[in-house]
Amino acid sequence: MGKRRIRLTVAYDGTHYHGWQLQKNGITIESELNRCLQELFGEEIQVTGASRTDSGVHALGNIAVFDTAGRIPAEKVSYALNRRLPEDIRVLGSEEVPPDWHPRRVSSRKTYEYRIYRGAFPLPTKRLYTLFVYRYLDIERMRRAAEYLVGEHDFKSFCQTGAQVESTVRTLYSVQVQEEGPEVVIRVCGNGFLYNMVRIIAGTLMDVGYGKREPEDMSRILALRDRNSAGPTAPAHGLTLIRYEYPEEGPK
Amino acid sequence: MGKRRIRLTVAYDGTHYHGWQLQKNGITIESELNRCLQELFGEEIQVTGASRTDSGVHALGNIAVFDTAGRIPAEKVSYALNRRLPEDIRVLGSEEVPPDWHPRRVSSRKTYEYRIYRGAFPLPTKRLYTLFVYRYLDIERMRRAAEYLVGEHDFKSFCQTGAQVESTVRTLYSVQVQEEGPEVVIRVCGNGFLYNMVRIIAGTLMDVGYGKREPEDMSRILALRDRNSAGPTAPAHGLTLIRYEYPEEGPK
Repeated sequence: MGKRRIRLTVAYDGTHYHGWQLQKNGITIESELNRCLQELFGEEIQVTGASRTDSGVHALGNIAVFDTAGRIPAEKVSYALNRRLPEDIRVLGSEEVPPDWHPRRVSSRKTYEYRIYRGAFPLPTKRLYTLFVYRYLDIERMRRAAEYLVGEHDFKSFCQTGAQVESTVRTLYSVQVQEEGPEVVIRVCGNGFLYNMVRIIAGTLMDVGYGKREPEDMSRILALRDRNSAGPTAPAHGLTLIRYEYPEEGPK
Repeated sequence: MGKRRIRLTVAYDGTHYHGWQLQKNGITIESELNRCLQELFGEEIQVTGASRTDSGVHALGNIAVFDTAGRIPAEKVSYALNRRLPEDIRVLGSEEVPPDWHPRRVSSRKTYEYRIYRGAFPLPTKRLYTLFVYRYLDIERMRRAAEYLVGEHDFKSFCQTGAQVESTVRTLYSVQVQEEGPEVVIRVCGNGFLYNMVRIIAGTLMDVGYGKREPEDMSRILALRDRNSAGPTAPAHGLTLIRYEYPEEGPK
């Protein structure tokens, strides 16, 4: 009997985890999924994730796959897993995919949000999911800066140094800066993201919002292909992976 | 030199506290404020709160007052306190009030929100501040039921039994049921609330939304003046005290 490959859509509050990826010390999203899948199927299981989010980053829809010889119907796996997982991780869906389907080797659209809370003081009920900022942010300037990032570009300046990648060219389909009451949401959609790319984009757009950089500086930053030319890496806890979409599969 | 009375506007994430009020065992919002005020002023200080919220209930704007002989300018107290308080409690404002001003003996308008998250599974990043519900809620029925509660009524049916109060008559200025994407917000504004009143209102409106009760049942529930006639007390973590307003002071 062959193994089936099952795909999971995973949401989590990253506050209490050492990121997605397995670590020698510290609990991760991946280690919790593996542990609960092994309990459920009674065999050793190792998930493969689409996005190996950093410590403190949240997700509403990360993707993982695993192979199993077990016979639990794919659609029931989410319910069975959620009874075992801690309450800050939830599997929102589970389905069978072809045995060669790999979440990082298919074309996908990924959407991230970086969320900023503006106020005189941080709000306790927002502290885990937003970056607190008390300085004035000029949203119009941030929007103008964001436009320079849309399209296919070499994003080397927006990639953490030391990251090993073949190409630093990526396509961003949209970079929106929206106000939601006291919050500012930077929503980025693209075909792929380099290491810390969204957090460096957020840090650079905030520099523009503060008046430390000009919106027009963005083209120079892109052209320099140098991490030092961009702004700081914004803290992890403001970042949430919203969703993965697989255009080849058609709309859900 | 006389003592001054200082009023604090306090926001907190109630998740990790045993409610507002001092307890022999367990850390409370009140005990944390007292501890930090004593550190700051070097004298024993005891705050008096406007709403003694239950364990797990959150606040964006609870009110407290304290008296001090210390000379720190009233407006600076919030900054100094926030440097000492844990990050899940923040003082959003501080100001001097008359020495006889008492937060429970002046007329006020209080606004509470009860927040429900609807989905197939709970969302980890919403779990601390919303009640998860997977059953269908008919919002229109909830709105019709809510209208019966607006105005001056005897809310004895919506008061936890055993509570000691002189009168169970209160006035609700508005009871709104709003959809915000997957969330349903029950927003209640009134001149005062009985023990667990908002949570019992939320539990009863949800019964109506589920189809277990009719909107028209609300007048009978009010007339019976019996806690058993109303619905269940909704869990604490969905409830947030939004704000206190003092009409006699004029708008801020």
